[in-house]
Amino acid sequence: MQPKNIAIVGSGLAGSLLAIYLRKRNHKVTVFDRRPDIRQVKFSGRSINLAMSVRGWKALDTVGIGEEIRKLAIPMDKRTMHVNGQPIYHQYYGKEGEAIYSISRGVLNRKMISLAEESGAVFRFNEKVWDVNLPEAKIYTGETEKGEWKEYQYDLIFGCDGAFSRVRHKMQRRSRFDYSQDFLDAGYKELGIPANEDGTHKLDKNSLHIWPRGKFMLIALPNLDGSFTCTLFMPHEGENSFESLKSDEEVKKFWQKYFPDTIDLMPTLLNDFNNNPTSALVTMKCYPWSYWDKVVLVGDSAHAIVPFYGQGINAGFEDISVLDQIIEDHNGENWQEIFEEYQKVRKPSADAIAELSYRNFMEMSSKTADSNFLLRKKIEKRFSENHPDKWVPLYSRVTFTNRPYAEALAIGDQQAAIMDEVMKIDNIEEKWDSDEVEQKIIASLNMSNSLQF
Amino acid sequence: MQPKNIAIVGSGLAGSLLAIYLRKRNHKVTVFDRRPDIRQVKFSGRSINLAMSVRGWKALDTVGIGEEIRKLAIPMDKRTMHVNGQPIYHQYYGKEGEAIYSISRGVLNRKMISLAEESGAVFRFNEKVWDVNLPEAKIYTGETEKGEWKEYQYDLIFGCDGAFSRVRHKMQRRSRFDYSQDFLDAGYKELGIPANEDGTHKLDKNSLHIWPRGKFMLIALPNLDGSFTCTLFMPHEGENSFESLKSDEEVKKFWQKYFPDTIDLMPTLLNDFNNNPTSALVTMKCYPWSYWDKVVLVGDSAHAIVPFYGQGINAGFEDISVLDQIIEDHNGENWQEIFEEYQKVRKPSADAIAELSYRNFMEMSSKTADSNFLLRKKIEKRFSENHPDKWVPLYSRVTFTNRPYAEALAIGDQQAAIMDEVMKIDNIEEKWDSDEVEQKIIASLNMSNSLQF
Repeated sequence: MQPKNIAIVGSGLAGSLLAIYLRKRNHKVTVFDRRPDIRQVKFSGRSINLAMSVRGWKALDTVGIGEEIRKLAIPMDKRTMHVNGQPIYHQYYGKEGEAIYSISRGVLNRKMISLAEESGAVFRFNEKVWDVNLPEAKIYTGETEKGEWKEYQYDLIFGCDGAFSRVRHKMQRRSRFDYSQDFLDAGYKELGIPANEDGTHKLDKNSLHIWPRGKFMLIALPNLDGSFTCTLFMPHEGENSFESLKSDEEVKKFWQKYFPDTIDLMPTLLNDFNNNPTSALVTMKCYPWSYWDKVVLVGDSAHAIVPFYGQGINAGFEDISVLDQIIEDHNGENWQEIFEEYQKVRKPSADAIAELSYRNFMEMSSKTADSNFLLRKKIEKRFSENHPDKWVPLYSRVTFTNRPYAEALAIGDQQAAIMDEVMKIDNIEEKWDSDEVEQKIIASLNMSNSLQF
Repeated sequence: MQPKNIAIVGSGLAGSLLAIYLRKRNHKVTVFDRRPDIRQVKFSGRSINLAMSVRGWKALDTVGIGEEIRKLAIPMDKRTMHVNGQPIYHQYYGKEGEAIYSISRGVLNRKMISLAEESGAVFRFNEKVWDVNLPEAKIYTGETEKGEWKEYQYDLIFGCDGAFSRVRHKMQRRSRFDYSQDFLDAGYKELGIPANEDGTHKLDKNSLHIWPRGKFMLIALPNLDGSFTCTLFMPHEGENSFESLKSDEEVKKFWQKYFPDTIDLMPTLLNDFNNNPTSALVTMKCYPWSYWDKVVLVGDSAHAIVPFYGQGINAGFEDISVLDQIIEDHNGENWQEIFEEYQKVRKPSADAIAELSYRNFMEMSSKTADSNFLLRKKIEKRFSENHPDKWVPLYSRVTFTNRPYAEALAIGDQQAAIMDEVMKIDNIEEKWDSDEVEQKIIASLNMSNSLQF
């Protein structure tokens, strides 16, 4: 295997982890970013905390940095539901010992850049890539689009520059490049719950807190310093929308009505609401992801998804561990074959997690407060505990396994069809834990043999 | 109504017809095009003849130029099918007197530009628009992207610059702009059948000729000069693909096998095949189509479709006649409302004709040679003739009415469900024209009351 001279565009999470992987294989790595070094600037107030799970940890552990990163993370083993007029209740994510991990995006990104630098990658901050010559693997940087540009030539270019990727933008102008961007009607805004004076958390710190309210919801994820990063998801327009909350009075009234139990927790609510931007939520798909043996997309630049399954970072990191295995299988030679296999393997799973994430907005914002849904989950959970070989719940398959997302989606749809039938059983509320229900599920599973992946 | 200073980007068919419409309302109109004046250059050999039908003619007749354009058109009242080893047969498109009209895109475009000029529009050819300032309705033109630019300010800008629109490209960078481009696996190549020496046509001139071959097909549309413009639609890659036909020998062998009856008709086949480009087929969707009261997309720039329903030009022209009616309804005032109503009315129909056009590739290339499909069409036709008030075939609703495409798609899907059931009747081949079949269709129609639009 010959060491290559490689450019990575984007110093975000995918770019910095990829730099570490490529340095392990002894390539020369330069990372470009149009932004300043995130280690030297204040965070922007437009982030949602990450929920790292098995796929993400695997990618980190493979290059030996999992332990280091775990120090930045807080395990969340359950959803804690805050429904108005009801006591708080919990939904455990998996089996005992299984959890997803809350990490601040900014804190993680700073650490990852430092680790990548330690591994020998060179970072060029404040240097914006304006254009890419795909067949010659050249990139052009400069102060302005119309000003003087500097030209660099590399052997390979990796586009890790996110949902609005400049590298992909260049590929998009080619004929036969499939592309779509779809915005949700809902957007989001970052808010905060500060720590207690003694540095402890104001709410249970091992939970992802949800205030589900139908078409909108508030969530809160814990930080190491005792604070929570909260996110309000809400339609841009219409009744109960960002557009409808223009004055402090309107925000206060809205909060009093829908989130009264949080008012004491959020002393900076009005300040946060006015100062933090309202951001859009987009699903971006494209294909192909590579150009010859020269350029390839990794992470959000290839597949941006909405955040409702907590899988964005896990999907991006899994791109890298899968790609690395393919490089290994090809002895680091024939990059065209490597890139083609990578995109062929990853594309169906990227589409699957996009679909699952899109669907999960409904689940989080309304169904988690719905008694029918909760009963359904209870039946599934009971069956899964009695027959762990026969039934892995969809959420667990996505979050706590390394099986392909595409497989999880397919099996999940079959499970959903079975549960639709189960829920039609007369008096299901009363006999949900009966032998009859259990036997029905087993019979249905036996009929759908394709469940045996 | 106040006359506006308007820029149209693109001097193609939509741009030149829109110029005529806006001049009728006394606006000042300047049309920009990056290409030279098409009246002074040779055609490019990458066109598919147009099939003008009711929607297109309506838009032309409204501004009084239908008669002029009809002189350039040849009516085609049927498909003429060329199936290997079978006699030629016909499928009439509609009722007696109904036809679609073959027009050369280049010939029509030249005429439309002249008509627009006569109406008072100013054309600026060879002037490429590189950038658009959307909120200020400014456009920037110049020789190169990085060179000196000239700035123009207008009251309104209309983007009629086609599937790869620069105006839309600028809108696409906004947040919350939905966009998709999807390429077919198949592409196309223009070929030709010259006229006989006496100027007559070598095949029936009042037909759209189809040589359906499953995954690929050849079509031929007549021109006024006795020639036919032919198009080969075929996958880019795989067996029987453009990629697989690399040498003259391979083309000849392929032609001998699949289109032997055309060899004598196409003396310039090899020359055409080698010199004309292989073009891609794309479906492009986006939303919104407008920016404030400043900028709006019309025609292919808003909704590019594949050509298999012959509706691309009709959809683009219908945009203009619908928009004009909305301008009229608003007394030419409040352009933001005009643009918003236009996009709201047209978007569902643009999506519907995209879907119908996509589906029609399968119909044209394989089903037209399938006996089951032909029986189905025969049953539909008979019922429609006996009960014209109850059943307008989908093709006729799309092609010979001005009802919205979205309505045609919805009713067509209901009709298809009914015909699926009809085709399951035992021995349907024998009793296709029986009273039993007729009664079954009537009963099904009565059940699906939503057919009564």
